[in-house]
Amino acid sequence: MTDRFEKGLNVRKDVLGAEHVARSMANVSEFNKEIQELVTSWCWGDIWTREGISRRDRSLINLAILTAMNRNHEFKVHVKGALTNGCTPEEIKEVLLQTAVYCGVPAALESFRNASEVLAEWEQETDGSSGRA
Amino acid sequence: MTDRFEKGLNVRKDVLGAEHVARSMANVSEFNKEIQELVTSWCWGDIWTREGISRRDRSLINLAILTAMNRNHEFKVHVKGALTNGCTPEEIKEVLLQTAVYCGVPAALESFRNASEVLAEWEQETDGSSGRA
Amino acid sequence: MTDRFEKGLNVRKDVLGAEHVARSMANVSEFNKEIQELVTSWCWGDIWTREGISRRDRSLINLAILTAMNRNHEFKVHVKGALTNGCTPEEIKEVLLQTAVYCGVPAALESFRNASEVLAEWEQETDGSSGRA
Amino acid sequence: MTDRFEKGLNVRKDVLGAEHVARSMANVSEFNKEIQELVTSWCWGDIWTREGISRRDRSLINLAILTAMNRNHEFKVHVKGALTNGCTPEEIKEVLLQTAVYCGVPAALESFRNASEVLAEWEQETDGSSGRA
Amino acid sequence: MTDRFEKGLNVRKDVLGAEHVARSMANVSEFNKEIQELVTSWCWGDIWTREGISRRDRSLINLAILTAMNRNHEFKVHVKGALTNGCTPEEIKEVLLQTAVYCGVPAALESFRNASEVLAEWEQETDGSSGRA
Amino acid sequence: MTDRFEKGLNVRKDVLGAEHVARSMANVSEFNKEIQELVTSWCWGDIWTREGISRRDRSLINLAILTAMNRNHEFKVHVKGALTNGCTPEEIKEVLLQTAVYCGVPAALESFRNASEVLAEWEQETDGSSGRA
Repeated sequence: MTDRFEKGLNVRKDVLGAEHVARSMANVSEFNKEIQELVTSWCWGDIWTREGISRRDRSLINLAILTAMNRNHEFKVHVKGALTNGCTPEEIKEVLLQTAVYCGVPAALESFRNASEVLAEWEQETDGSSGRA
Repeated sequence: MTDRFEKGLNVRKDVLGAEHVARSMANVSEFNKEIQELVTSWCWGDIWTREGISRRDRSLINLAILTAMNRNHEFKVHVKGALTNGCTPEEIKEVLLQTAVYCGVPAALESFRNASEVLAEWEQETDGSSGRA
Repeated sequence: MTDRFEKGLNVRKDVLGAEHVARSMANVSEFNKEIQELVTSWCWGDIWTREGISRRDRSLINLAILTAMNRNHEFKVHVKGALTNGCTPEEIKEVLLQTAVYCGVPAALESFRNASEVLAEWEQETDGSSGRA
Repeated sequence: MTDRFEKGLNVRKDVLGAEHVARSMANVSEFNKEIQELVTSWCWGDIWTREGISRRDRSLINLAILTAMNRNHEFKVHVKGALTNGCTPEEIKEVLLQTAVYCGVPAALESFRNASEVLAEWEQETDGSSGRA
Repeated sequence: MTDRFEKGLNVRKDVLGAEHVARSMANVSEFNKEIQELVTSWCWGDIWTREGISRRDRSLINLAILTAMNRNHEFKVHVKGALTNGCTPEEIKEVLLQTAVYCGVPAALESFRNASEVLAEWEQETDGSSGRA
Repeated sequence: MTDRFEKGLNVRKDVLGAEHVARSMANVSEFNKEIQELVTSWCWGDIWTREGISRRDRSLINLAILTAMNRNHEFKVHVKGALTNGCTPEEIKEVLLQTAVYCGVPAALESFRNASEVLAEWEQETDGSSGRA
C-alpha cells in the first residue's frame, strides 16, 4: 500500500492543507487508523492522482456530490479544498445553483449556508484574495 | 414565463437533441403540461443559460449528481447530453470513478453499466466519432 | 396481533383493492409471511386506521414520501390507492409539482411518468370517470 | 422574473413570516443573491401560488418530504410555516406518525424532536393558542 | 398492544439502558406519546424480540443501516447499544470500514467520528473494560 | 496493486462465484476496466479479506446497506453471495424484517421481492439444499 499511500498523502496535503492532514493524523487512534489509511489510498492515491480531468474539475464535482449526499461536514472540508485548487466563489456558486434544480431547493440552501461560512473564513485568512487570480 | 421558456427550450434542444425534446413535447398531456413548462424554464432557462461555468462542466456535474441521487433514467439522458456537449468518454469515466469513493461502489457500478449502454448507442449513431475531436 | 391485523386488513382492502390484497396473500411464502403480517398491522392497522387526517390526506402525503424516497413500485401502488381514496388527477399533479422544487426535478419527472401510466390504466378500467365526482 | 418574484415574495411572507423573510433578505450577499431570487420565484412564485390543493395541504406535504429527505433545518422552518397556515399540532403529529412506517423510525424520531422544539417556541410566542381555532 | 409493548419495553431497556428509556419516557408529551408507544412495539416488541439472529448481529446491522441512512443521532444511541450487547470496538470498526466502500467514504468518516465520541464516553464510564470480556 | 488485486480476486470468486466474476471480466472494456480493478482491490482486497467479523456477517451487513441505499441490482448479487457464504434464508429474512423499521416498509418490501427471486433460482440450482446444512 505504501506507494499509493505516499502519493495520496501528498495530494491530500496539497488540496486540504498540510495542517488539516496533520490534525487528522494526530487524531489517529487504534479505532480509526485503518480508515485514515484507506481514505488516503483510495480517494487520494487512486482517484485524485489520476489525470483526465483537472483538480479544479474534481473539486466542483465533489461539491455537487456532497450536496446531493447530504454530507455537510465533508462538504465544508471540500469547499476549502476547492478554493485551494483555484476554484472561484463564482464557480462554486454555479455548482450550487445547479444542485437547486437537480437535488431540490433545501439541499442547495443548506450548501449555500455552509459554503458562505467557509468563504468568510477563507477571506479573513487570505485578506479577500480568494480563488484564481 | 415566455422569454425564459423560449431561451430554455433552445438550450434544451441543443443539449438533449431536438428529437428528444420534440418527443417530450408530443407526450404533453393535461396531466404533465405544467411540469414540462417548469422543467424547461427552471433547468434550462434559469440554470443552463447561465455563464460562469461551461456546458461541459454542467454535464459532468450532472452525471455526478444523478449517480448520487440514484436517478438512472435521467442519468442516461444526461450521458447523451454530455457527449453532445463535447465531453469525452474518458472524462465521463473519470467522474464515475470519483463517485465510487464518494457515493459508494454500488452507485458507481450502476452508472458505469448505464453509461456503457448509452456509449454503445452513441458510437453506432456516430460511427465511433464520439466526444471532442 | 389479531385485532390490529383484522382492522388493518380491512383498510388495506379498501384502499388498495380486495384483488390486490388477495394477490399479495396468495404470494405468501415461508420467507415473506412475517413481512406481510407486519405491513398489515403497522401501516394499515396502526396508521391508516387513525383519525386526525383523512385518507385523502394520507394518500397525497404518501405520494410525496415515495417520490422523495425513490420507491417507484410502491409509488405506483399508492397512485391507484389515491384514486380509490377519491384524490383527483389534479390533486396528484399538484403534489408532484411540489416535489419538483423540494426533491429535485429528476424525482418529479420519474413520478410524473409513473403516475401517467397508472392514470391511463385507471381511466381504461373506469371509462374515464376517475377521482371524486 | 419580476411578476412571479413579487407574487412569490408575498406568499413567502405570509407563510414564513415577514420577519423571517426580512432576515433572509438582509443576509443577501454577492454569493447567495441568485439562490434567494430563484427560491422565491420557483418555490413561492411558481408552486405555492398555485391552486388545486390548499396551503394547509402543501404544508403537510412539505413536512413529509423534508423528513424523507433528511433536511432538518428546512423542516423546522416549515413546521412554523405549517402552524401559520393553520395546521394543528395533531395534524402535524399524524404526518410524522405516517413517516415512521414509510421513511423508517429514525427519520420520524428526528422530526418529532425537531417539531417539538418549534412547537414549544410557538406556544410561548402565541400563549398556547396555536393552530386552527 | 400491551403484551408486545411490555416485551418490547424490556428489550429496549436491556439494549439502550434503563436510564435512557426512563429519560425518553419522562419526555413523553401529548405530541409524541404515540410515537414512543409505536417505536417500543414495532422496533423492540416486534423485531428485537425475534430469534433467528442474535442481538449482537442486530446491533452491527443497525450501525450499517444508520450510517447508510445518514441518521447520526440514532447512530450514536445504537453504538452504545452495540457495546451493551457485547459488540467489541473491533467489530464496530469492521462494520464501518465496510460502509466506506458500500456507502461512500464521507458516510464512513462521519460514523467513525460519531462512534469515537461514544467509545470515549463508554470507556470513561466502564474504566476501559468495554465489549465482550 | 497486484497483491491486493490477486487476493481480492480470489475472495470475489469465492463469494460471488467464479462464473459471475468471469462474466464481469469478459465485459471489461476500455471504458470500465479501471472500475473493475478498483472494485476488486477496494471491496474484495482491502475489506473482504479482513478478519474481525466473518464473511457471513459481512454478507448480512451488505444486504442491510444495499436495502437502505436502494441499490437493487447489487442487492441481488449479494443475496446470492450471502447464500454462498452459508447464510440461511431465515437469517436473510431477519435482516430484511429489521430494515422494515429502520429504512421504512417500502424499502423492506422491495428487498423481499428481490430476495425471493434469487432464492427461487438458488433453490432450483441446488435442489433446495440452500444455506448452512
